[in-house]
Amino acid sequence: MSEIEGLMRAIGLRAKEAAADLAFATPEAKTRALEAAADALWSGRARLIEANALDLDFGREKGLSPSMMDRLMLDDGRIAAMVEGLRAVAAQPDPVGQVMAEWDRPTGLHIQRVRTPLGVIGVIYESRPNVTADAGALCLKSGNAVILRGGSESFHSSGVIHSALVEGLRAAGLPEDAIQLVPTRDRAAVSEMLRMTGVIDVIVPRGGKGLVGLVQAEARVPVFAHLEGICHVYVDRAADPDKARRVVLNAKTRRTGVCGAAECLLLHRDIADTLGAEIIADLVAAGVEVRAGEGLQHLPGVLPAAAGDFGTEFLDRIIAVKLVEDVDAAISHIRRFGSGHTEAILTEDDATAGRFFARLDSAILMRNASTQFADGGEFGMGAEIGIATGKMHARGPVGAEQLTSFKYLVTGDGTIRA
Amino acid sequence: MSEIEGLMRAIGLRAKEAAADLAFATPEAKTRALEAAADALWSGRARLIEANALDLDFGREKGLSPSMMDRLMLDDGRIAAMVEGLRAVAAQPDPVGQVMAEWDRPTGLHIQRVRTPLGVIGVIYESRPNVTADAGALCLKSGNAVILRGGSESFHSSGVIHSALVEGLRAAGLPEDAIQLVPTRDRAAVSEMLRMTGVIDVIVPRGGKGLVGLVQAEARVPVFAHLEGICHVYVDRAADPDKARRVVLNAKTRRTGVCGAAECLLLHRDIADTLGAEIIADLVAAGVEVRAGEGLQHLPGVLPAAAGDFGTEFLDRIIAVKLVEDVDAAISHIRRFGSGHTEAILTEDDATAGRFFARLDSAILMRNASTQFADGGEFGMGAEIGIATGKMHARGPVGAEQLTSFKYLVTGDGTIRA
Repeated sequence: MSEIEGLMRAIGLRAKEAAADLAFATPEAKTRALEAAADALWSGRARLIEANALDLDFGREKGLSPSMMDRLMLDDGRIAAMVEGLRAVAAQPDPVGQVMAEWDRPTGLHIQRVRTPLGVIGVIYESRPNVTADAGALCLKSGNAVILRGGSESFHSSGVIHSALVEGLRAAGLPEDAIQLVPTRDRAAVSEMLRMTGVIDVIVPRGGKGLVGLVQAEARVPVFAHLEGICHVYVDRAADPDKARRVVLNAKTRRTGVCGAAECLLLHRDIADTLGAEIIADLVAAGVEVRAGEGLQHLPGVLPAAAGDFGTEFLDRIIAVKLVEDVDAAISHIRRFGSGHTEAILTEDDATAGRFFARLDSAILMRNASTQFADGGEFGMGAEIGIATGKMHARGPVGAEQLTSFKYLVTGDGTIRA
Repeated sequence: MSEIEGLMRAIGLRAKEAAADLAFATPEAKTRALEAAADALWSGRARLIEANALDLDFGREKGLSPSMMDRLMLDDGRIAAMVEGLRAVAAQPDPVGQVMAEWDRPTGLHIQRVRTPLGVIGVIYESRPNVTADAGALCLKSGNAVILRGGSESFHSSGVIHSALVEGLRAAGLPEDAIQLVPTRDRAAVSEMLRMTGVIDVIVPRGGKGLVGLVQAEARVPVFAHLEGICHVYVDRAADPDKARRVVLNAKTRRTGVCGAAECLLLHRDIADTLGAEIIADLVAAGVEVRAGEGLQHLPGVLPAAAGDFGTEFLDRIIAVKLVEDVDAAISHIRRFGSGHTEAILTEDDATAGRFFARLDSAILMRNASTQFADGGEFGMGAEIGIATGKMHARGPVGAEQLTSFKYLVTGDGTIRA
């Protein structure tokens, strides 16, 4: 057994023991732990900023891209956001023990379906240190032990955030092993985690396509993830022009590096030279590179789209645009090129919107709203551990509730089966 | 590509196409299909009994055990039960499109979480021909296409039942490929199914430990299953004697070959010579071989238990019995030896029952009721495709609802994210 294998097995064993205790921790204890962690994180922010400076130095040496460096950087504002995130999760209802459904049977049995924790969650992430706080908080809230494996870039920052979480656990009398951070930069730890069936119940990878693809391909445990967010916005003939212009601009430009950013705009053929031209002019004016298909290439500032532009996640100020016959053609295009993450329709026509909602099967479908709302916080989950495009167990933004399973509690009165 | 590989790929492709249509089939069409299938099955019962006779001949030649032969055998009563099962599933509420939750956000967004089908289900089973009808019906109800792979023993019977299901689909104008039966006895078809990621979304194995263990070990797609049903009954000091005697006898003897049959009885030490002795006398009188631990071996008709008797699924008229200190000792024993299927407590004490319910994490926990109720029909699901002891997605009896996923439908009014 290699050193890393031994280390990870020991971490796994401690996580399983902590999970057994955590499964019936009171809601109050978990809330107290999260609030104490928020206090510790805020009062220790000077130490966190020092640790973050070490990570930034390491990142510069390693030649990280400006956007990676930006994700890594912490300041008072970002720490305050993390602290607020912890408090928001603390304030959420506790999912564990919630009665999801109950009913009586003619036999006299009363049946309840109640939420239980899943067990042990593994989280593998890259440069964003805030994942340490978000993932730790959501797993604790849902009664799960968690094994966090942060990126080597955020090693020091994650360590300080993790200490604050452990301080919270200690203050609430909960097992410290409920939230563990893998204490090595060795990549072998990741491979080990992916094989820890019987210990880790689900793995959540957070990061770029490289990381997520690797985890999806190699994990022997279930994975909640999305590989890409190739989000589409379809502007129907019956769209309200003001709403459509506002929503498309926001969906593409609010933040271009997030998975909910629009990557492809589909325009109903009938509005190509009216609303369509206005939307494209808005995008060009906002500095977006518009790569358009036939029937749109005469518009000012537009580049011709290549075939490969459709189905591409740009994560940048670039958008692919195409004219379509009608909503059914938009649906076909999305089925072919989408990644099952988030798609939006702009229309005032209920039947058209209903068709879009019924016939597409992405995790999130939106009407007259920006795809940038694809986010656990915006959905009211307090925070999210990630967004899943699979259909097993969790789907869409994964909050505390999706990190639970359930069991049946059946009560009789000496009841026997005939 | 081998012949079987080609065959299975073609079946998979047709299933995926059927699933895409089925996802928005109306509830009425699905109900009509199930009712027409029930009619076809009943009116064609003479043909089914002929086909079953061929299977019984094959089984006799192959030297199947009496219990296997019994599972295989169909008569008018059993066919009527299958027909009733189809009608019961038809009468269930349609899960697809159900709004599981909805809420408003301060941003003005309205969010709905609605049920969707999973996609394509694979069902691999052994001798019971009725699985063909139950599994086909539940998958159709939940909007999923299904690939059925019945045991070689029930080959002819399953074929006739499958024809009735297809007749139902045809009568309702639904795609016939929604319910496909693998048309070969070749075992390579099973291995192929286990590897059909990207086509089959979940596999449900129905059968003995050999089949389930193989599927769990080799499947590359998610599996809903239980390997064993090592069900425990704990009789507390505060049990009502009449209820306890009735329930234990039923839990062990109603049917011994089902996964919900009790395999281990735990008795509170204080009732060893009173209620405990009565319960054991009941079991001995009913012809059950009682293998008891220390403190019980002096009772009439009792054999001493070997260590291996605890944690064994007998599926026979045998039960292991042990004295325990209290409910916590019962919980420890069950955690160590249970299979996470179903456990029951007999007690009039609410606190003790609450502890048993909170601290055990089996799929089903029962109070003052027989473990033999571990069954989708008894839970009110119309039928079940199996019972799952995993914690991902489905757990306990798997009915139509557990064969669904969900998506989010978000409605705004030109809403953009700040």
